[in-house]
Amino acid sequence: MSSVARSTACLPMAVKMTNARDQYYMAEAIALAKKGLMTTSPNPRVGCVLVKDDVVVGRGYHLRAGEGHAEVNALADAGVNAQGCTAYVTLEPCSHTGRTGPCCQALANAGVARVVVAMQDPNPQVGGSGLQYLRDQGIAVDVGVLEQQARALNPGFIRRMTHGLPLVTAKLASSVDGRTAMASGESQWITGPAARTQVQQLRARSCAIITGIGSILLDDSSLTLRRDELGLDAELSEQVVRRQPIRVVLDSRLRMPLSAKILRQTGRTIIAYHYADAERLEALSNAGAELVQLPLRDGHVDGLALLRWLAEQQQCNEVLLETGSQLAGGWLQQGLIDRLKIFMAPKLLGSQARPLFTLPLAAMSEQVELAIDDIRAVGDDWLISAAPVYSTPL
Amino acid sequence: MSSVARSTACLPMAVKMTNARDQYYMAEAIALAKKGLMTTSPNPRVGCVLVKDDVVVGRGYHLRAGEGHAEVNALADAGVNAQGCTAYVTLEPCSHTGRTGPCCQALANAGVARVVVAMQDPNPQVGGSGLQYLRDQGIAVDVGVLEQQARALNPGFIRRMTHGLPLVTAKLASSVDGRTAMASGESQWITGPAARTQVQQLRARSCAIITGIGSILLDDSSLTLRRDELGLDAELSEQVVRRQPIRVVLDSRLRMPLSAKILRQTGRTIIAYHYADAERLEALSNAGAELVQLPLRDGHVDGLALLRWLAEQQQCNEVLLETGSQLAGGWLQQGLIDRLKIFMAPKLLGSQARPLFTLPLAAMSEQVELAIDDIRAVGDDWLISAAPVYSTPL
Repeated sequence: MSSVARSTACLPMAVKMTNARDQYYMAEAIALAKKGLMTTSPNPRVGCVLVKDDVVVGRGYHLRAGEGHAEVNALADAGVNAQGCTAYVTLEPCSHTGRTGPCCQALANAGVARVVVAMQDPNPQVGGSGLQYLRDQGIAVDVGVLEQQARALNPGFIRRMTHGLPLVTAKLASSVDGRTAMASGESQWITGPAARTQVQQLRARSCAIITGIGSILLDDSSLTLRRDELGLDAELSEQVVRRQPIRVVLDSRLRMPLSAKILRQTGRTIIAYHYADAERLEALSNAGAELVQLPLRDGHVDGLALLRWLAEQQQCNEVLLETGSQLAGGWLQQGLIDRLKIFMAPKLLGSQARPLFTLPLAAMSEQVELAIDDIRAVGDDWLISAAPVYSTPL
Repeated sequence: MSSVARSTACLPMAVKMTNARDQYYMAEAIALAKKGLMTTSPNPRVGCVLVKDDVVVGRGYHLRAGEGHAEVNALADAGVNAQGCTAYVTLEPCSHTGRTGPCCQALANAGVARVVVAMQDPNPQVGGSGLQYLRDQGIAVDVGVLEQQARALNPGFIRRMTHGLPLVTAKLASSVDGRTAMASGESQWITGPAARTQVQQLRARSCAIITGIGSILLDDSSLTLRRDELGLDAELSEQVVRRQPIRVVLDSRLRMPLSAKILRQTGRTIIAYHYADAERLEALSNAGAELVQLPLRDGHVDGLALLRWLAEQQQCNEVLLETGSQLAGGWLQQGLIDRLKIFMAPKLLGSQARPLFTLPLAAMSEQVELAIDDIRAVGDDWLISAAPVYSTPL
């Protein structure tokens, strides 16, 4: 075999080897990013691995807003070994203050030779500027390694950056015959303890939990994270409960009782109302609630206006809708729900019980199509993960 | 180690080895029995393997009522090699005409040395007599190898023999929100082609398909097996469609139209009625229906009376209930449904649509518990296999 033939034959193999190696280290960076799943909000989950001569010399991830970014943590872990290494980062490094942003600058200052990025910053106003800065410093940059997996880390952050809206997941409990409560409203404990742990984890990854005043009046729910019910190890549970998601109650006429449990929890409770009443406003404010006045739509606080406000004013990435069939059905019809998490209990509640969604459809042609991703056992219950097909693809 | 200690230590191992070998060959006999899943009714599915010096010398299974039993087919396959072999049979060999019954006698006549049986005949009047006959001929007999798996071959046959009732499986189509049809009754094609194939196979293993006159009036269903929709290879499909399950329509007032499609199919259509009308009876009989008069219960043909009649007079082992929410709900409340096969389509039909079961329950304490065995993807749909917890354990 001639040397020319050999070098030609080897080239694709070398390229392929490089891709496999890049994917291997990026997969580790993604695994690191996931450690921040329940703590980084409103920041994105990001992981970083520094590799020199095929040895990992530094690892970092973003744990919490206000603390070190993944790249900075990895550089600190590597110390002098960062010189000449390749950095694998799940998201384009930030260049907050223009082309001299902290993470880009830190990577350059540490002498990193190459930066591999899974995905560009989804914010259209800054996306690409960090990559450009790095290239301008003579650093080799590759983008798009395991991009799909990296996007799945931050569906809400991406949605907010691209659409100015949070990603809305509706959590529902259902019987096999599609009922969420008895006609009387009786509904507590349809599902078992394993499902409740999963709900706690859904709350923990959310920036806000949204409910209707009806659910508060019926169940007096707290909508908090509870350390002992998270099903996580003690240290992580401790980290997670330090950030209680914002609790948001849709309450157009300020019917919230001053004695409601939800007002007495740590963290913030926001009441989204429409009809102002100075006395009630003051009383609820004194009871600990924050209040935001929003327009009506069909007689209820406008869900889209609330979502925009949560994205723009409260930096909400992922929000969890935990409510009854009326509000869930209304939001579904307005196209506001992106994902469904239906915990299905192995029971029948009968044909007089409340529907999963109050959704008045007359003909089969009006049916709402779902894309079911997954159905899996959760203790004695089953979790159906789905998306309404109208949902904007991320 | 002393020889005494060794012989004691070895004994359990020898026993265990024998069990493993017995289980291995019995598993093959069970696999053979399954070949008759859709053809043997009203007879049980039975398989037989003949083994000599650790070599399989004969295989047989029961294909169809009136044709050879598994043991006889296996003996024919083995020929002279049957002499001195061990026979593995999934069900106690029959001794129909007392202690000189055909299969027992055939095994003895062929010189079989040992018979291993998975389960005794479930008919309390004959169970054990075949085993006794074999033992009386000096043949070694072992019972209970893979008994649970062997029982699962014939749940309906066992139910009929022990309870004088068929096993009732209700097949339903549902949306994720637990609806089976629009309020108008519009319901065709909720589920996709893969689910329809599964329904054909459920029909094929059933002795009878039961529906209500409401479903006939609404959909004009035929309730037949269709060769091209069975999803089986051509030869088996051919075998299967030779036996159309009995079609049974609950029609207390003889509302069946003479033009109904179900009357024009190959195979038998039985109308279970209560209110006699000589003229209608004659017209429907002339149109091809068989007619059986049964008592009422709560204004409808008594389901339990029908099931007893089907077991006792029609030798029905497994029956499939394919009907609307009212009949399904009524039978569920009466405890007549043993198993549920719910084909769940990835869609929402809304809160005005018809319920999965018409089941008036007022309080959570009245809920019907289900044991869910399995949920699996079937094309774009999902099949939930469950049993109401009231169900008599088999």
